[in-house]
Amino acid sequence: MKNHYTKSELTSFTKDVFLAMGCSEADAQIATDVLVKADLRGIDSHGVARLIGYVRLWEADRINPKPDIKVVHETPSTAVVDGDRGLGLVVAPAAMKIAMQKAKEVGSGWVSVKNSNHFGIAGYHAMMALENDMVGMAMTNASPLVAPTFAKERMLGTNPIAVAIPSAKQPPFIADLATTTAANGKLEILQRKEEQAPTGWIQDKEGKNSNDPHELKNGGALLPLGGDREHGSHKGYALGSIVDIFSAVFSGANYGPWAPPFVSFLPLSENPVGEGLGHFLGAMRIDAFRPADEFKSHMDNWISRFREAEAVEGKKVIIPGDPEREMEAERGNNGIPLNEKVVEDLREVGKKFGLELA
Amino acid sequence: MKNHYTKSELTSFTKDVFLAMGCSEADAQIATDVLVKADLRGIDSHGVARLIGYVRLWEADRINPKPDIKVVHETPSTAVVDGDRGLGLVVAPAAMKIAMQKAKEVGSGWVSVKNSNHFGIAGYHAMMALENDMVGMAMTNASPLVAPTFAKERMLGTNPIAVAIPSAKQPPFIADLATTTAANGKLEILQRKEEQAPTGWIQDKEGKNSNDPHELKNGGALLPLGGDREHGSHKGYALGSIVDIFSAVFSGANYGPWAPPFVSFLPLSENPVGEGLGHFLGAMRIDAFRPADEFKSHMDNWISRFREAEAVEGKKVIIPGDPEREMEAERGNNGIPLNEKVVEDLREVGKKFGLELA
Repeated sequence: MKNHYTKSELTSFTKDVFLAMGCSEADAQIATDVLVKADLRGIDSHGVARLIGYVRLWEADRINPKPDIKVVHETPSTAVVDGDRGLGLVVAPAAMKIAMQKAKEVGSGWVSVKNSNHFGIAGYHAMMALENDMVGMAMTNASPLVAPTFAKERMLGTNPIAVAIPSAKQPPFIADLATTTAANGKLEILQRKEEQAPTGWIQDKEGKNSNDPHELKNGGALLPLGGDREHGSHKGYALGSIVDIFSAVFSGANYGPWAPPFVSFLPLSENPVGEGLGHFLGAMRIDAFRPADEFKSHMDNWISRFREAEAVEGKKVIIPGDPEREMEAERGNNGIPLNEKVVEDLREVGKKFGLELA
Repeated sequence: MKNHYTKSELTSFTKDVFLAMGCSEADAQIATDVLVKADLRGIDSHGVARLIGYVRLWEADRINPKPDIKVVHETPSTAVVDGDRGLGLVVAPAAMKIAMQKAKEVGSGWVSVKNSNHFGIAGYHAMMALENDMVGMAMTNASPLVAPTFAKERMLGTNPIAVAIPSAKQPPFIADLATTTAANGKLEILQRKEEQAPTGWIQDKEGKNSNDPHELKNGGALLPLGGDREHGSHKGYALGSIVDIFSAVFSGANYGPWAPPFVSFLPLSENPVGEGLGHFLGAMRIDAFRPADEFKSHMDNWISRFREAEAVEGKKVIIPGDPEREMEAERGNNGIPLNEKVVEDLREVGKKFGLELA
């Protein structure tokens, strides 16, 4: 079975699927772009592997393919956006555009979003700011899989934070991190390989450390960044909480354990505290602080100084975004390898709509 | 020797010291308030224990007791403040007031500060927003003590992030966290007790894990939150970097390894890349997103739901800010215990200015 695809093959198929779901041409294009960007950048868990998940949510009538995305509350530098149950892949870029427009007008823009769902890689939305000489930020809450420090119960999602910062000659600084020790995608890789997880990634249903990557199916949970109290898990828990509150309490989305699941076979909460999933997008014009050229030349200096930091033997110090950028160059040239299971899922999706994967 | 002091004893002595350094009445008051607040909240490393450090910086002419703190660049929602080499304890609250004024006018305010120095506990400045029904944020860069993932070299400070979020009936959510596994203050406690540090806190000068709390004196470094690559230290490194860039590259302060040391016996960089230390302060009006009462009642619900999360046997789930609030109530009533060494330092400071510690 073919398991290596070009960017253009995946783009064409994915866009046709979104069009078949009833998305507009523009929405299908941006949703596809967000997914394929994840595959190109090597974040395989958030790319076309998730397409079947979005299709199933649409079949369960949990996604509106023709959303009326609108601002429901605003000030000159802030807004709340109602995503109208649209694809997060479409809602988040629309909200980011509003944040950037506000930054253009008053220096910074901050948009909290309700009534959305999974928005793909946070980094995509943050990176939208770069071409406008702005710092971009993106966060989202997500299906509850993470236990706070000392809890058995899953209360938070992996709640990522992405920050993109422009530079001049150096490639930009792009951080995109789950506020857990390890993202769920890394656990999925271990599950497929039937390998043990390192201590500090997950706990069992009693809250004891576990190395079984399948533990989440038995009532276990992912652990906040830090792993345990002695190693600072209360900090990961606090960071994940801040993402949850900015994304969902600011906007009126569901927060904490009420956050809707990504998988369509799990039921929605019977007594929701808000509407859908929440995101938080931010943009700051760099020349709202100092002349853009000056800022960018200091960022070049920051980046090259850190890249040249004296390294541990056999290693080198990397800048956030380096590995993903290298992967994007490599996969852009040589294509994207897909897991066999992912190819099967894509073929199944194709069958639903009478579409053929290349 | 007396080693237990009331809030008012410490306040009176500390304020007299700042006045003797030449601070104005108002500046001495706020600087004292920031320091004593740290002691009350149990963050002993950042309280009056640091007074002697500020005095020594002043003696070395690295602190200006009568700073002309001013905005040097601004938009409706952003500003850069020049701290004029003032005490960070004075400069940061002044910058936070500017952020809050901007939030009042356009929904949010973001202020990056240069030409400052150590600002005490980040939480103090973030908490200033609470009484105005705003979310407050505070960050600062600091003396380079932290090695990025795979580095031997110290490139970042412990670069804290504080976020304060208002609620109605519940006490507010207050996170205040160093972006390292353990703050330097925790290491100092182990040094005094001659106890080993847990694995994941520090490394030796070759970049190997160490359990010796004195390792920093031998060229070792603190580790970013996560501890090592397998446990997510690249995330702690990214977060510390973001704090550094927002605090110092936005403002024009010294960043990364150029950040000035807190201790006056270490030399300043011979080729600085900016002026002094940097901070980043933010304020967002909660009613810039949704009606304040609605937001606060959902925060109450968020807090009580998390506090009631099913806990691991023998433990309870706490909300960021709980331990410090309990400590503040206790020490407000019963006084503040000071380490013997700290009392000696305070007496030494007293002697310099002809002041008597109670």
